[in-house]
Amino acid sequence: MNVVQCLFCKMVAGEIPVTKIYEDDEVLAFLDIGPISDGHTLVIPKQHFDKLHDCPSEVLAQIASRLGKIAGAVSAAMNSEGYNVLCNNGRAAGQVIEHLHFHIISRSAGDGLLSRWPSYEYQAGEIESIAARIRKYL
Amino acid sequence: MNVVQCLFCKMVAGEIPVTKIYEDDEVLAFLDIGPISDGHTLVIPKQHFDKLHDCPSEVLAQIASRLGKIAGAVSAAMNSEGYNVLCNNGRAAGQVIEHLHFHIISRSAGDGLLSRWPSYEYQAGEIESIAARIRKYL
Repeated sequence: MNVVQCLFCKMVAGEIPVTKIYEDDEVLAFLDIGPISDGHTLVIPKQHFDKLHDCPSEVLAQIASRLGKIAGAVSAAMNSEGYNVLCNNGRAAGQVIEHLHFHIISRSAGDGLLSRWPSYEYQAGEIESIAARIRKYL
Repeated sequence: MNVVQCLFCKMVAGEIPVTKIYEDDEVLAFLDIGPISDGHTLVIPKQHFDKLHDCPSEVLAQIASRLGKIAGAVSAAMNSEGYNVLCNNGRAAGQVIEHLHFHIISRSAGDGLLSRWPSYEYQAGEIESIAARIRKYL
């Protein structure tokens, strides 16, 4: 991603207006202009990282340490029955802007958002072999 | 939530077996036995908190500081084209186990997971009034 052309970097720099919810030296939170529920908020690091696994752990810690408070505020203000915090990484996962961001999405029972959840069971032995493959990368 | 009966607390205590991906003093990551894609991982704090906004910011920071590395490992091991990190809070938002957890979900283009995303636009003035309501809780 070219940082100069990044929409969120321009918002951080004040070149594109945003409806701010919260701001400090490291983190910016603002309302998504294309919400899927009222109060749909985006929380981003001010520094540019494309994806979660590109982001240093100390920056992730900074974001997350604000996330609970912001999510609680969105939930309380929207009188929500629940909320999702969602971070999409990669086009295949629904990431549109390639600047790491966390969606906070207020939910009501039966609203049907994010609803395709076709869970299944692993075959015998499969879960252990998959876990071993993942652990190799840690 | 009664912590004594919490499924994830029992996993942390070693009373229920899990397929571990990662563990340290604060955080446990393991494979979901009802995955929606291969390698579907859950990352939890060892300490019990029902929801994100119940969790102290320093504990959220601990979880998040491990999240990038674990997500990167899941993604690499699964040869994924992308991944979601998702934290459901409240039954209305799809939370089944009331112990804070982050799903890491490996994605492929066109898999259709988590796909209901009916975005809309706010009416004139609405975004500012909603932002003001949220900011009151911060």
